[in-house]
Amino acid sequence: MTEGTVKFEEVPEKYKNMGGRWLTSSLISDEVPATCHPLGPNNKLIFAPGIVTGTAAPCSGRISVGGKSPLTSGIKEANAGTPAAQSLAKMGIKAIIVEGQPKEKDSFFILRLTKDGGSLEPAGDLVGIGLYEFARRIKERFGKVDFVATGPTGEKRMAMSGVCFNDKDGRPCRYAGRGGLGAVMGAKGLKAIIIDDTGAPGVNIADPDLFKTGQRKLVEALKEHGVTKPGGTLNSYGTAALINVLNEAGGLPTRNFSAGRFEGANKIAGETIAEIIKQRNGSGTTGHPCHPGCIIQCGNVWARPDGSEHVSCLEYESVWALGANCGIDDIDAVAELVWICNDSGLDTIEAGVTLGVAMEAGLIKFGDAQGAINLLKECAKGTPLGHIIGNGAAFTGKAFGVTRVPTVKGQGMPAYEPRAVKGVGITYMTSTMGADHTAGYTVAPEILSVGGKVDPLTSGGKAELSRNFQATTAFLDSTGYCLFISFAILDIPTGFEGMIETCNGVLGSKWTADDVASIGKEILKIERAFNEAAGFTKAHDRPPEFMRYEPLPPHNHVYDVPDEELDKVFAEL
Amino acid sequence: MTEGTVKFEEVPEKYKNMGGRWLTSSLISDEVPATCHPLGPNNKLIFAPGIVTGTAAPCSGRISVGGKSPLTSGIKEANAGTPAAQSLAKMGIKAIIVEGQPKEKDSFFILRLTKDGGSLEPAGDLVGIGLYEFARRIKERFGKVDFVATGPTGEKRMAMSGVCFNDKDGRPCRYAGRGGLGAVMGAKGLKAIIIDDTGAPGVNIADPDLFKTGQRKLVEALKEHGVTKPGGTLNSYGTAALINVLNEAGGLPTRNFSAGRFEGANKIAGETIAEIIKQRNGSGTTGHPCHPGCIIQCGNVWARPDGSEHVSCLEYESVWALGANCGIDDIDAVAELVWICNDSGLDTIEAGVTLGVAMEAGLIKFGDAQGAINLLKECAKGTPLGHIIGNGAAFTGKAFGVTRVPTVKGQGMPAYEPRAVKGVGITYMTSTMGADHTAGYTVAPEILSVGGKVDPLTSGGKAELSRNFQATTAFLDSTGYCLFISFAILDIPTGFEGMIETCNGVLGSKWTADDVASIGKEILKIERAFNEAAGFTKAHDRPPEFMRYEPLPPHNHVYDVPDEELDKVFAEL
Repeated sequence: MTEGTVKFEEVPEKYKNMGGRWLTSSLISDEVPATCHPLGPNNKLIFAPGIVTGTAAPCSGRISVGGKSPLTSGIKEANAGTPAAQSLAKMGIKAIIVEGQPKEKDSFFILRLTKDGGSLEPAGDLVGIGLYEFARRIKERFGKVDFVATGPTGEKRMAMSGVCFNDKDGRPCRYAGRGGLGAVMGAKGLKAIIIDDTGAPGVNIADPDLFKTGQRKLVEALKEHGVTKPGGTLNSYGTAALINVLNEAGGLPTRNFSAGRFEGANKIAGETIAEIIKQRNGSGTTGHPCHPGCIIQCGNVWARPDGSEHVSCLEYESVWALGANCGIDDIDAVAELVWICNDSGLDTIEAGVTLGVAMEAGLIKFGDAQGAINLLKECAKGTPLGHIIGNGAAFTGKAFGVTRVPTVKGQGMPAYEPRAVKGVGITYMTSTMGADHTAGYTVAPEILSVGGKVDPLTSGGKAELSRNFQATTAFLDSTGYCLFISFAILDIPTGFEGMIETCNGVLGSKWTADDVASIGKEILKIERAFNEAAGFTKAHDRPPEFMRYEPLPPHNHVYDVPDEELDKVFAEL
Repeated sequence: MTEGTVKFEEVPEKYKNMGGRWLTSSLISDEVPATCHPLGPNNKLIFAPGIVTGTAAPCSGRISVGGKSPLTSGIKEANAGTPAAQSLAKMGIKAIIVEGQPKEKDSFFILRLTKDGGSLEPAGDLVGIGLYEFARRIKERFGKVDFVATGPTGEKRMAMSGVCFNDKDGRPCRYAGRGGLGAVMGAKGLKAIIIDDTGAPGVNIADPDLFKTGQRKLVEALKEHGVTKPGGTLNSYGTAALINVLNEAGGLPTRNFSAGRFEGANKIAGETIAEIIKQRNGSGTTGHPCHPGCIIQCGNVWARPDGSEHVSCLEYESVWALGANCGIDDIDAVAELVWICNDSGLDTIEAGVTLGVAMEAGLIKFGDAQGAINLLKECAKGTPLGHIIGNGAAFTGKAFGVTRVPTVKGQGMPAYEPRAVKGVGITYMTSTMGADHTAGYTVAPEILSVGGKVDPLTSGGKAELSRNFQATTAFLDSTGYCLFISFAILDIPTGFEGMIETCNGVLGSKWTADDVASIGKEILKIERAFNEAAGFTKAHDRPPEFMRYEPLPPHNHVYDVPDEELDKVFAEL
């Protein structure tokens, strides 16, 4: 970005078998000084589709975004499901590495990629507008292309900004949301990447037969498992089916993590969402895929009372964060908050956690939906208040001297209360990513009885569980597969085999189940070493202090996993 | 504060010979969990006069304030010269330890101390007003008493808030400014401590003869040295005599550390300040002591053009921070900014560094004095912008995505550019306190030819210099002596002897010069261990990244002290 040039390079041998998170984290580890300023010229922003992305493997349209995070100050990988991932992969692009910074402050460019190469062009009137209008202009100017973009909050380098991708219909609603990589994109002066994959050669598959065998096994497993199958839980009700489940378990963080049950839970639950979409009988739909080739199809499109399209998608995390965590039970208001996030370029999880902290600080009252809408709109406007909110929950807590701030390593906690689901708490505390449920989803056995069954309230002996989930996830995040295939492959061994075989089919490798764990651990080690060099210690693998002394209703547990147990995750990696 | 009770305890044997920083840091190390939230119930706020404070030893009226810092997240000691220190010492109070937190949020109390004991009373109308009005009401209600107070910004738990003490005339202008301990005081619900030392027994002196011998030697040294003697540099021109010196050396940080020389330096220099005070021939004065018994008398009272009193005191650090660092050369405007800091409860150094960063962010222009005044007033008002500015330079930089942010461990750098004065840079980077010139003032030999002579621009071999200064300073900060006696005792051996003899005289101890170094190192080790437990590593002992790649005019050096040299300070302690 410093010179305004685009250069294509062959993939060095070292990186040939890598993809997704494995590749972004390795490149960051190799090329980014751990103590650099996340918004300075020495950070890099990296985009990498997964190993099988762009092939016919089911649910494999994911792309990883990596860099040093302005939110956590550690290494960051966030991923999204989007046709943009598939396009890049089909064009034979293994990774995009964004380096440097424009010499002129606040100048922005777009990177255009076609089969003929790449070019950087001034972003012009694409800057300073909401992402829905951005998407409209992109379509108008370039036709049906894919895009990666940072929103107006990312342009302003706010640490709550995610990286936005188009969904299969061109909506700006698929996010690599966490960790503020949208702010890194803004700091690099890169407004957007416009991808036209016309004439792309497609992904090279080393062993087509093996690939097809694996693909078939995986498809079968996905179509068999109750959570992932067509007409199954995710397909029918979306991820927000978890609202009632977690509420029942007393683990749905409510009103800034002050309770584990929300009396309005059912009004924002997945079942209710599906029912209302059906009732309104308009543009809304359930079972909406984020990219072509998805079997699970857990997304949705929400419609207003008059049936007109409002926003896609009402995910569990978004609905929890902007609903229960803010004491808001008006699902149309929640949808509007999601829309504001999508339009502004904000991570919905961090946004909801931040609004909860702002409510705790007394800026507005819990449950004040209109107040929340007004507050969240400040971010894109760039007011001083917007610059507070837009920098996330830890920042907002510090701004107003709040002590009940549910963050780890500066990142807001997702929709599982660690005091009620102790294992996922270990993932929050120890993940290289900061508080992140997707980094090691022990919720599967703790709450959903998937991949085994463990009592969520026990505090001992869960380091190993979290470690294994973290390692497997690090591998999965590298394949390009959606994490939701886990439900099927944890319970159905042939599905797991199929997943590995598709990777081996593409790469010509000979990985086994053991390699999944060992590669996953290798990725974690790379990330952990970066964080250590950046200044992280065991003291950063701790819950926010209030969780140690405030019992959480209804179970009235504090977070009682001992420090020693937390330290076991990486000590024994 | 949780129960609203006051309890007196005998001093345990372990702490008997301690005072000041040695005592506050030891108590914090022993009693405060390193990973606690600085504004939560488990932090403690500790006040401790020095070992010889309250005696007739010259320049010994200092008090240390300690706690876990909300600005740096590490251990913090900040000290001030004030009659309040002397009163506490004369009352036989070795330390005040403030624990817990009121159960009701935003409730405030005052602690009243008299010879009959202590009591906590509701603070009532003393809350929410500026500190000048506070001081007026205190005098009206309680007569001539001493006080410790947190300002309106501390009540709002802003991390730029210092702890305010009265000067000898009852002005609210003597600050233990750094590290946000005023916010800790606010978070504890302690608005103020009101001290009436009527009938106090005075400090017990174990060996009066030895004490008197030492006192005489120290007085002689102070009266002999050109910097400290009556009519000497500090007495005549105040600390701001350094403005021209540092400007000449190219080490006066200008416009947010983007240059080392300020074209308007002479307009805000100590010589000019003294000249204008004389010309205006009103309430202003130079040679003003912060507490009775000071020989150096480096303070001043600034008068408005009409001769009426404006503010005390125009220190070097304040004038630099709110002047040169903001590109402001209007000394009356600088005086007004100091007044706002004193009235709001803000650290002038952090305030100036923060305004510099805000100017860098484009909120106002460099040199815009009225803009700076307006901006700084936001803090006490508690607006969103005030909550940004009020949380300091690192916070403000993060709010607006600025990368040129001159802080270490979250604390703004003082008035010596590390790229031009490399040794004091080592102190900034490695001090347990964050960027702090008083923690190891190698400026003495590097710029002032006191205690030897060293080239300020050389980068090698200065770890030892900084380490020795840091250790000696840690000891001095424990004695109750003003750091400015260093000028005399570094150059005049009998002065140094005298300093030790007064301590031995009070305590009945038998310390030698070796003990000064070994006790100092012991204090540093205690503090360093706390910080390590709080999560600090070598990565935190680094300059802000921009100083590694941006050369500073006029010498055009980057900060080139190698990491290995920085690490030597504590590795070889």
